[in-house]
Amino acid sequence: MSDGPVATEKLQELISRGPFNRWLNFTVLKADDDGVEIKAAWREEWVVNPERRYTHGGILAAIIDVAADYAIAAQLGRPVPTVDIRVDYHRAAMPGDLTAKARVVRMGSQYSTAEAYLYDKDGALVASGRGTYFTAQPK
Amino acid sequence: MSDGPVATEKLQELISRGPFNRWLNFTVLKADDDGVEIKAAWREEWVVNPERRYTHGGILAAIIDVAADYAIAAQLGRPVPTVDIRVDYHRAAMPGDLTAKARVVRMGSQYSTAEAYLYDKDGALVASGRGTYFTAQPK
Amino acid sequence: MSDGPVATEKLQELISRGPFNRWLNFTVLKADDDGVEIKAAWREEWVVNPERRYTHGGILAAIIDVAADYAIAAQLGRPVPTVDIRVDYHRAAMPGDLTAKARVVRMGSQYSTAEAYLYDKDGALVASGRGTYFTAQPK
Amino acid sequence: MSDGPVATEKLQELISRGPFNRWLNFTVLKADDDGVEIKAAWREEWVVNPERRYTHGGILAAIIDVAADYAIAAQLGRPVPTVDIRVDYHRAAMPGDLTAKARVVRMGSQYSTAEAYLYDKDGALVASGRGTYFTAQPK
Repeated sequence: MSDGPVATEKLQELISRGPFNRWLNFTVLKADDDGVEIKAAWREEWVVNPERRYTHGGILAAIIDVAADYAIAAQLGRPVPTVDIRVDYHRAAMPGDLTAKARVVRMGSQYSTAEAYLYDKDGALVASGRGTYFTAQPK
Repeated sequence: MSDGPVATEKLQELISRGPFNRWLNFTVLKADDDGVEIKAAWREEWVVNPERRYTHGGILAAIIDVAADYAIAAQLGRPVPTVDIRVDYHRAAMPGDLTAKARVVRMGSQYSTAEAYLYDKDGALVASGRGTYFTAQPK
Repeated sequence: MSDGPVATEKLQELISRGPFNRWLNFTVLKADDDGVEIKAAWREEWVVNPERRYTHGGILAAIIDVAADYAIAAQLGRPVPTVDIRVDYHRAAMPGDLTAKARVVRMGSQYSTAEAYLYDKDGALVASGRGTYFTAQPK
Repeated sequence: MSDGPVATEKLQELISRGPFNRWLNFTVLKADDDGVEIKAAWREEWVVNPERRYTHGGILAAIIDVAADYAIAAQLGRPVPTVDIRVDYHRAAMPGDLTAKARVVRMGSQYSTAEAYLYDKDGALVASGRGTYFTAQPK
């Protein structure tokens, strides 16, 4: 399906092409046979509650989706369409960079499953999830 | 559990308090016993793919989460923490405002389920989903 | 994709071919453009807790999956593989027949989304859910 | 929250109390700080398709739900109500015993997340999933 994981630089280039991914400030930290590690640099607009200042769940969902997608991209050489996603919220994500670790659960010829775990700047798990991705060959 | 749906103006005020919700440009169009209808005004940063220009799935997930949450807020008078969410992507969401229709599936004393359907500016269904929300009384 | 809903008798014949579906005692009550309605006849083995005697969540998940699948089958003329499913549990399902109402959320050429709502013998909603189904043409 | 994992024998006793769990023929193989391992012994009624003879997705969902629940039970000393569950199907599960490995993703005072991976008799991954469980103290 591939000759092995796609180089980190190539993934960084792919992820930086999209305006929303750039807005999420992604840095691809690592990509190997075990999956990918991706950092999103915090920005003030992520806040959902102005007093308590934790991060909006939609931001966490977006990061988990992208990380799981890029675990697949690390094998296929391209990001793929998300079919559906599930995200579980574990604790409030306070201001600070977030790092996702993602891996492929099963690679299939038509659709695939990948999962991601999201950590705050102190290493605490703030959210996790999994998605189905459409991995059929583009025609 | 409530004396009936919370006024649209009150929901608009609640939703506009959060920086990310303001960034998503939400307008509460309707709130009654059947649920809520919420519009998000498109912005250029939402694009995931610079050539094909459709909207990032994370944006759609965020809107679905907020709409489902506000279907609950329309009954409880306050938005509630999301426990988990599932989002299904149905078709590419091209540039343009998006409108979500959401309703409570089951209101419970500890946790509740709500669902939302998201439409593009031409009325086509682009995504839908459901989530579990934490609705226990704050202590 | 089809000339319209498949006849109820045809769906009943399809659903009754599988041993586990027979064990779940399915009767197809209705099938039309709005979806399907399917009854599962209660059996003692469904109990999860011998004192409180409510139904095992795995049974409710199975019924929701089958109902959503047959909402698609009503259009395609055949049941299809489940890619993934989400089920929300709303209240304990006490002994008695269960009836599911299911409909297609979006029919696609590669994968589709369907949802189902499950009611106890008194009409109370006990569970609901949605799944992604693989609807590409068999080769 | 507990003095450590509950003994395997205690979990076996708890799991065998329910009629449907007995019908699923569960054996608790292992329970320690990393989670639980549970085997379900195959039975003819599990078949969904009489020609191809693979296992019904509802059976796989039930096993995943029970395994994830018992990963929590191994810490709390009791199984807990399932709030919602997601199951991904990876490949057809042919006749034969199935073994689930499950672990707690996050233990919370109100609700918790656990995940499970399900393998066929040859060790191939056939399904996986995760659920939200209600872990508040019973009153």
